[in-house]
Parts: sequence; C-alpha cells; structure tokens
Amino acid sequence: MLPPSTSLGTGFSRVTIIGLGLIGSSIARAVGKYMPDVVVTGYDANPDVRATAQAIGLCGDIADSAGAAVTDADFVIFCVPVGAMGAAAAEIAADLPADAVVSDVGSCKESVAAELMAALPGAKVIPAHPVAGTENSGPEAGFATLFQNRWCIVTPPEGADSLAVERVCEFWRALGAEVEMMAPDHHDRVLAVTSHLPHLIAYTIVGTASDLEEVTRSEVIKYSAGGFRDFTRIAASDPTMWRDVFLSNKEAVLDMLQRFSEDLSALQRAIRWGKGDELFDLFTRTRAIRRSILEEGQDDARPDFGRSHDE
Amino acid sequence: MLPPSTSLGTGFSRVTIIGLGLIGSSIARAVGKYMPDVVVTGYDANPDVRATAQAIGLCGDIADSAGAAVTDADFVIFCVPVGAMGAAAAEIAADLPADAVVSDVGSCKESVAAELMAALPGAKVIPAHPVAGTENSGPEAGFATLFQNRWCIVTPPEGADSLAVERVCEFWRALGAEVEMMAPDHHDRVLAVTSHLPHLIAYTIVGTASDLEEVTRSEVIKYSAGGFRDFTRIAASDPTMWRDVFLSNKEAVLDMLQRFSEDLSALQRAIRWGKGDELFDLFTRTRAIRRSILEEGQDDARPDFGRSHDE
Repeated sequence: MLPPSTSLGTGFSRVTIIGLGLIGSSIARAVGKYMPDVVVTGYDANPDVRATAQAIGLCGDIADSAGAAVTDADFVIFCVPVGAMGAAAAEIAADLPADAVVSDVGSCKESVAAELMAALPGAKVIPAHPVAGTENSGPEAGFATLFQNRWCIVTPPEGADSLAVERVCEFWRALGAEVEMMAPDHHDRVLAVTSHLPHLIAYTIVGTASDLEEVTRSEVIKYSAGGFRDFTRIAASDPTMWRDVFLSNKEAVLDMLQRFSEDLSALQRAIRWGKGDELFDLFTRTRAIRRSILEEGQDDARPDFGRSHDE
Repeated sequence: MLPPSTSLGTGFSRVTIIGLGLIGSSIARAVGKYMPDVVVTGYDANPDVRATAQAIGLCGDIADSAGAAVTDADFVIFCVPVGAMGAAAAEIAADLPADAVVSDVGSCKESVAAELMAALPGAKVIPAHPVAGTENSGPEAGFATLFQNRWCIVTPPEGADSLAVERVCEFWRALGAEVEMMAPDHHDRVLAVTSHLPHLIAYTIVGTASDLEEVTRSEVIKYSAGGFRDFTRIAASDPTMWRDVFLSNKEAVLDMLQRFSEDLSALQRAIRWGKGDELFDLFTRTRAIRRSILEEGQDDARPDFGRSHDE
C-alpha cells in the first residue's frame, strides 16, 4: 500500500481528541505516525482512561478537563458513544476557539449532527464516520493503521463551510482512509444495513445460544467453529457504544430489522415445506456479494479470515 | 501444537473417500501427511472433480466408479452433501467388503445414519462429524491441517460395534482432531445452534442487504467493514451442502429459528421503546461467551480475526 498522501496538508496544527477508546486512540496514534508535526491533545471523561493514555504516551498531552483540552485547538474530534456526544460538546462550549472545526466519528450521523450543532451554536461542525474498527475497546486497543484503505464517510450539514469540509476530508486521507461524502440520513440508512443490523443479529444469536436448556454453554463454545464463533466476535463489541447506536438510529434500524424478519420468515417457510430450490437460489446469490467484497479489497481473501491452520 | 498421536494406530490400511470437496480432499491430504502408510482411494461423482483430483495428485488412486473405489477398502468415508448420502451409499452396496467400517462427515447425524444404514444393511456404520471447514469448496480448497485442534463428534448408533467405534475415533485423533461422542439427536440440536442457525441468518442478511431499493449494492459492498462482511464469508459457503443441511435437520433448525425470532422481537421492542438497559445487559452478557471461546482455543484471539492492518 502506498503511504498516505500528506502533500496537500489539512491546515490543522493542533488536534484535540475527546474520548480515547479504540477509535480515539487510533486517531491519536495515526496522527502521530502520519502527521508528526501536528500537536495532539487527548481527553477522556474517565480518569482511569486518562491515566492509561498518559502511561502509554498516547499523545503529546492529556488534559484534565474537556475545556482545557480544546482552548488551543483548531480541530476537535469527538470519539465518544453517540449518546454522549451532546453532553461532551456542551462541556467544551465555553472554551472552543471560534474558528475551530468540530467533527466526530459516530456511527449515526443525523442525530449526532443535531446534538453537536445544538450544543455548539455557530461552530463549524462537520460530522464524519470512519468505517473501521475491531471488537476490542479502550486506549490500548487502538493502532495507527486502523483506517488504512477503509472508507471515511463525511456528512456535512446543509450550508457547511466548504473549506472546513475539505480540511476534514484531507485529514482522513492523511490517515490513510478513502473519503466519501453523503447526506446524513442516507448515511444512516446505509450503515443500518452494513453495520447496525449485523451487530444486532450477532448479539441476538449469541444471546439465544446461551439461553438454551438442553444444549449447554460449554457445548456451544466447544463446537463454535461451525459458524457461531464468527458472530461472537461482533457480539463482543462495546456495549455502551452499541446501545447508543441502536437508540440513535432507531428508525432506520427498525426498518432494516423488519425487512430482515420478513426474509427470515420466507426462508423458515421454505425449510418447513421442503422447498430446496428457493434455498439453493438464495445461497447462490449471496456468494456473489462475497466475491465483490473481496474484489473491492474490503476483506481478507484468505479462507476463514486467514485464521491459521498450521501447526 | 504436538504432532498427532499415531501410536495406537487405527487398524485401517485402505481408506476410501467418496466425495472430494473441501472436507474429503482435506481428509485425503491429512491421511497422506499423518498416516503415510495408509493407502487412500478417492472417488467423486463429478468427472471434473475426479480429473482435478488426479491432476493435483490428491491421493494414491482416483477410481472411475464408486463400486471400484471400495472393493478393497477397510474404511469408507462419505464426504458428500447430506442429501446425497443415501444414493451414494446405494452405489457401493454391492461392492462393500463385509467387514469394512463406514462413516461420513455430514453436518446432520440422525438423518444420515438412517440413510446409510438403510442403504447398507448389516454394514458397520459409525457416523461422525468433524466441526471444521472454510467458506471455500472443491478438491483444491482442502488442506491437511484443517482438523487440527478442532472437534470431531462421533455418533454411534445404538448397538454399534465398539471396536469399530474406537477405530473411527482413533482415525480422527490421528488427523489432529479431538473426539467427542454424542447421541445423534443431541448432535443435531447442538449443531443447529452452533452452525446451522448462524449460516441461515448469514444467508438471510446478505439477501436482505442485496434487495434494498435505496441503498445500492455498491454501497453495501463498500461499507461492509462495519460488520456485514463477516456474515458474507459464511454466506459464501457451498449452496448444495447447506440446502441439504437445512432440509435434513429441519426440526431442530426450525426450533432454534423460532427461539431466535422471539429474542430478536424482544430486542426490536427494546429499541422501539428506548429501553437502553435491556440492550446494554444483553450486549454485556454476550461478551463473556466470546471470552470463553478464545480461552478454549476455538478462535483466533487477534483482533478482527487477525486481519492484517499493516501497510
């Protein structure tokens, strides 16, 4: 892979990251690696997280308060659960420099944009969503290359300052991401199907499996290589983050869920009535999607996600 | 990992594999690697598969007919889709040596045992199921270490010859698997939840996503790293194999599906009515299952299935 472009520059020289979990700490590391001249200040509401970030030398400075973290910033990125965005923004309102650009990394864009703009009237709010992550959480889970070759969706509100938009896009490109622009409500529909629904279903099936009376939990774990274990990785994601996503993107998630349930009922009926052709046709169609994902470089083509099968 | 034990020996010296897909070809390779003295004969109903197996030197001999493949065998393993077991067994009935042990690798055990025993009256039928696989299919997809550290569930019918059972167990241990015994109907319930239901759900969601009107297929593919792509791997599995599994293990699958649907409805309701605590509690509970799977060595502990995030 080519090194990320830094030729254009983002114009940002002091970046503040509010929330130092997987994404926030990955941004801190990525800026350190790809934009070494930029000063990074971090803040997290949790003192333990701040202490860890300090101890591992995550970034130039860890501030003691959200306000202190932003006084000198020209770019502030909120990396907190989407349900906490409004309160986190309110905390910096008095200290945010007038010309600073504000962004976030939340997985729902319509609700987050509304909350940030309400809490920071007059600020240049340009929400964004890097579509990247792992099942791990916390400041130690982050890594600098998380955004390499991943998409970052930028969702400028109507009438947004176009220079600020371009600087946010350039920031993500510098971190290795490919940038796409999208209307916030469309983003929320797309992510409902590519991210939110898969998580909801993974959480559900893991719950269903652990509630069975006659199949023991130990059996479920032992024989999970038959397919179940792939769902457990997703269902190990951060509970607070995902609770907030489902509540914040309620309408789109409920609509996708309804469609999914109808399709599942149709398959259930096909199984009950022995309609093998219907099953076969669907199972053939779904293979093509996998092929496209591999062709577009959005997943690892090695079998079984590259899990090692050597001794 | 320790090399598989071969000290006890299985007593088998001529093994025939009927069906040379992912599992059959992996067994052929594994026997070649871990039991080099054993003669392996292969057969597949598809002449193209036979030609490929011949060309890649998969095993000692590729027979032209199922009957010819088994005339000298002391162990015959059916590695065909579960819906094809009965017909495949009928093809060898006239040529099967009287004292040969017969087994299979199907993902449903009650229906397969019944079909094999009906087609081969008097034969020593000891069904088994190695819980291992990848999303790839065909004779070139197999590899010798597929069964290392995976479970193989052996499901002897009532009154089975205990020496034959022990030889089958020893065979799988020699290939690197850990062996567990189980009643066939219990096996089918366990696998319904750890394997069949996850596949059904993955197929469904991939279908749902590809049918949306306003979210394009290209968007679904582009932003699949948010969770969706993990489902597409499973939904890329062999369509014939899986059609047969759902039809053969109908009752257990429909029961698990019913439980899953109820749980999903409860979550749907929690989202609609903003019951964040219910969501949070479930999402916390499911994390523990993931931890157990990693502790038991049934998955790769590296984040994101070890997908490479380096440049």
